[in-house]
Amino acid sequence: MDEKDTNRLEAFSDGVFAVAITLLVLDIKFSPFEPGGGLMDDWTLWQVIRHQGPTLFAFVTSFVTIGVMWLNHHRVFKHIKRTDTTLLFLNILLLMIIVFIPVPTALLAEYITAPRYHTAAILYGITFFVMATCFNLIWRYASHNGRLLGRKVDVHEVNKISRQYAFGPLVYVISIALALFNTPLTMVFNFLLAVFFALPEFPRPRRKQSDPFVESDTIAE
Amino acid sequence: MDEKDTNRLEAFSDGVFAVAITLLVLDIKFSPFEPGGGLMDDWTLWQVIRHQGPTLFAFVTSFVTIGVMWLNHHRVFKHIKRTDTTLLFLNILLLMIIVFIPVPTALLAEYITAPRYHTAAILYGITFFVMATCFNLIWRYASHNGRLLGRKVDVHEVNKISRQYAFGPLVYVISIALALFNTPLTMVFNFLLAVFFALPEFPRPRRKQSDPFVESDTIAE
Amino acid sequence: MDEKDTNRLEAFSDGVFAVAITLLVLDIKFSPFEPGGGLMDDWTLWQVIRHQGPTLFAFVTSFVTIGVMWLNHHRVFKHIKRTDTTLLFLNILLLMIIVFIPVPTALLAEYITAPRYHTAAILYGITFFVMATCFNLIWRYASHNGRLLGRKVDVHEVNKISRQYAFGPLVYVISIALALFNTPLTMVFNFLLAVFFALPEFPRPRRKQSDPFVESDTIAE
Amino acid sequence: MDEKDTNRLEAFSDGVFAVAITLLVLDIKFSPFEPGGGLMDDWTLWQVIRHQGPTLFAFVTSFVTIGVMWLNHHRVFKHIKRTDTTLLFLNILLLMIIVFIPVPTALLAEYITAPRYHTAAILYGITFFVMATCFNLIWRYASHNGRLLGRKVDVHEVNKISRQYAFGPLVYVISIALALFNTPLTMVFNFLLAVFFALPEFPRPRRKQSDPFVESDTIAE
Repeated sequence: MDEKDTNRLEAFSDGVFAVAITLLVLDIKFSPFEPGGGLMDDWTLWQVIRHQGPTLFAFVTSFVTIGVMWLNHHRVFKHIKRTDTTLLFLNILLLMIIVFIPVPTALLAEYITAPRYHTAAILYGITFFVMATCFNLIWRYASHNGRLLGRKVDVHEVNKISRQYAFGPLVYVISIALALFNTPLTMVFNFLLAVFFALPEFPRPRRKQSDPFVESDTIAE
Repeated sequence: MDEKDTNRLEAFSDGVFAVAITLLVLDIKFSPFEPGGGLMDDWTLWQVIRHQGPTLFAFVTSFVTIGVMWLNHHRVFKHIKRTDTTLLFLNILLLMIIVFIPVPTALLAEYITAPRYHTAAILYGITFFVMATCFNLIWRYASHNGRLLGRKVDVHEVNKISRQYAFGPLVYVISIALALFNTPLTMVFNFLLAVFFALPEFPRPRRKQSDPFVESDTIAE
Repeated sequence: MDEKDTNRLEAFSDGVFAVAITLLVLDIKFSPFEPGGGLMDDWTLWQVIRHQGPTLFAFVTSFVTIGVMWLNHHRVFKHIKRTDTTLLFLNILLLMIIVFIPVPTALLAEYITAPRYHTAAILYGITFFVMATCFNLIWRYASHNGRLLGRKVDVHEVNKISRQYAFGPLVYVISIALALFNTPLTMVFNFLLAVFFALPEFPRPRRKQSDPFVESDTIAE
Repeated sequence: MDEKDTNRLEAFSDGVFAVAITLLVLDIKFSPFEPGGGLMDDWTLWQVIRHQGPTLFAFVTSFVTIGVMWLNHHRVFKHIKRTDTTLLFLNILLLMIIVFIPVPTALLAEYITAPRYHTAAILYGITFFVMATCFNLIWRYASHNGRLLGRKVDVHEVNKISRQYAFGPLVYVISIALALFNTPLTMVFNFLLAVFFALPEFPRPRRKQSDPFVESDTIAE
C-alpha cells in the first residue's frame, strides 16, 4: 500500500487548515487607547469590546466552519489510501475554497443585521456550494470503482458517504435561493449543513461500554 | 488500535499551536525611522525599544502560555488513543480559545500599570476559565470509563490527571475574583496555574541515573 | 534506511508550503463600509467585489502555482530517501523562492491589463527561472550516482524526471524573453510549464480497473 | 523507546520554524500604484523595487538564518530520543528566540549603511547570544550522562557536538563586542557562526561512491 502519498497530502492539508483557522484571530483587533493616547477606562473598553460583536461572531463561525471542514476532510481521507495527480489537484482546489471561507463569512457577519441586503449572503452561499462540489468531486473520483480506496475498505461506510454527499450541492443551491429572502437563516442553515456532512457517519468506538479496557478489533485500520 | 485518528488530530492541533504561537511576533513592530524619514540615532532607538516594554512582555507571556498549553495538550493526548466526533468537536473548541489567548493577553499587558481598571483582567480571567473548562471536558469525556484511552493505560497517571483537573475551573473562578482587586497579581496567578497543570505529572525517565544508557521499558508506549 | 531525515525535511517543507499558500488570502481585503461608516447597499458591494478582480486572479494563480510546486516537491522527494547538509541547504533556497512567489504574482496581476509595461513580467519570469534552477540543483545533486535516492529506486521514473528537468531553466529563459513582448501570455506560459513539470510522471495506480479491490504491489514503497 | 514524545516536539518545532520563516515575506510589501492611483511605468517600478534593497536583504538573511537554525535543531534532535518537562520548556524558550529573530535582523538591515550607529547590531548580537545559550542548555541537559539520548547513541558524534557547542556563547560575546565597531562585519560574522554550528558534523552518507545503490547500515537509526 502506497501510504506515504496520503500521509504527505494529509500533512499538507492539515497545515493549510491549521494556518487558515488560526489566521482568523488576526481580524480581532482593537486598541485600548483613547484617540488622545491614554488608556481607556473600564466603561469605554467594555463599549469597544461590545462593538466587536460581529467580528467575534465571524471569528467563531469561521473557526467552527473550518474545523467542521477539517472533520469532513478527515472522514473522507480515512478511506482514501492512495493518490494520483487528479486527486492532488482536486485537493488543492478544495483547500483554496477552505482558505477563502473567512472572506465571505466576515462579510456576512457584518450584514447579519441588515436583512434588506442579499449580496453577502449570496456570496456566502456560492462559496459553500463550490466547497460541497469539491468534496463531492474528491469523493466520487476516489471511490469510483474503489479507485483510490484501501483494500480492506468498509463498504457500508463508503456507500453511506456516497449517499450523503449525493445531494450536497443540490442542498446548497437551495441555500443560495434562501439567501435572497433571509440572511441570518442562510448562515444558520449552511452551518447546520456543514455539521450534518461531518457528523453522522463518524467513527464511533464500537466496543461495549461494559468492557472499557478491551478494544474492539473492528475499528482497527 | 485506531492510531491514525489521534495522529491527525495531534498534527492539526500542533499546527494550530505552532501558528498561534508564531503569529505573536507580528505584534512587535517598531520603525527605526524618524518622522522626517531618516534613521534614528542610537539614543532615540533605545528609547523606542524601551517603550516596547508592554508589547514585549505580552509577547513573552503569550508565548510561554501557549507553549504551556501545548504541554498540557501533549500530556492529555499521551493517554487518549482514539477519537470520536464529540472529542474532535471539543478539541476544536479548545483550539479556538488557545488561538484567542493573545487578544486578552495583549490587552492585559497594556493595563498592567493601570491598577484602577479591571476590565482587561476580567476578560483575561474568563478566557482562562473557559480554557480550563475545555481541557476538563476533553479529559472527562475521553477518560470516562476509559472510553477513548489506550488499552495499556497508566491508571495511576490517569487518576492523577483527573484529580488535578477536578478543581481547575474552580481555581480560575478565584482568579476572576482576584481580577477585581489586583491586575498584575491576576496575570502571575494565571500563569503559575497554567504551569501547575502542565507540570507535576509529566513523564520523567524512570530509569536509574547510574545506568544512563539502558532504557527502562516501563515508559514504552 | 535513514528515513527520519527525509521525514523532517518533508514536514518542514510541507509546513512552509502550507503557510505560504494560506497567507495569500490576507491580500483579499475589502471593507463593506461606506466612507461615511454605513454598510454598502447590494449594488455598491458588487462593484467593490468586481474591482477585486486582479486581486482574486492573483490569489487563484499564486495558490495553484504554489500547489503545483508542492506537487513537484512531492514528486521529487518520493525518490529521495536520505539527506545531507547540501541537500538541506538547497531545499531551504528552494523554499525561499516558493515563499517569495506571491510578491511577483500579485505585481503581475496588476499589470496584466497594462501591456506596455514589462518590469512585472520580467520579475515574474526571473523568479520562475530561479525556482526551476533550484529544483534542478536538488534533483541533480540527489540523483547523481543515486547519491541520496532509495535503494529500490524506479530507474525508469528517475531518468524520466532527469530528462524532463534538463531543459527546465532553458524554457524559463524563453519565458523571460517572452515577457518583453506579451505580459498575459507570459503568465499563461509559466503556469502551463509549472503544471507540465508536475504532471506527466505522477504516480498512477497501476492496478487493473477491472479488479478494483486488489492492490498492485508494484506501487508499494 | 518512547519515540512519540520527540515526534510531537519535532512536529511542533517544525511548525513554528515553518511559520516563522514564511511570515518573513509579509515584510516585502510594495505597491505598484502612483500616489495619484495609476500604475507606475517601468522605470518608476524599478526604482521602487531597487529601494526594497534593505528589505530584501533582511528577508534573505532572516530566511537563511532561521533555515540554518532548523538544521541545528534537526541535528541536535537526531540524538535526543526522549523528552521531559525541562526539555520541553527549554525548547519553548529556544523557539521564542527563533520567532523573534526577524525583528533584530530587519532592524540591522536598515542600519547596515549607517556605521555610526551600534544599537541595532548590539540587539542583533544579544539575540544570537541568547539563542546559542538556549541551544547549549538543551544539548547539555539532554546529553548529560546521556539523560535523554537514544540507547544506540553515536558517542563520537555526541562528543563532537558537545565540544563544538562549548565555546558557542563565548564566540557570540565576541560578536557583541564587534558590534561596537563594525555593523556589517557583525552581521557576516554571526551568519557564518550559525552556518558553522550547523555544518561540520552533519550526517554524510558513509557508503562508498563506487556502489551507489547499496546503502550502508551504519547510518540506520
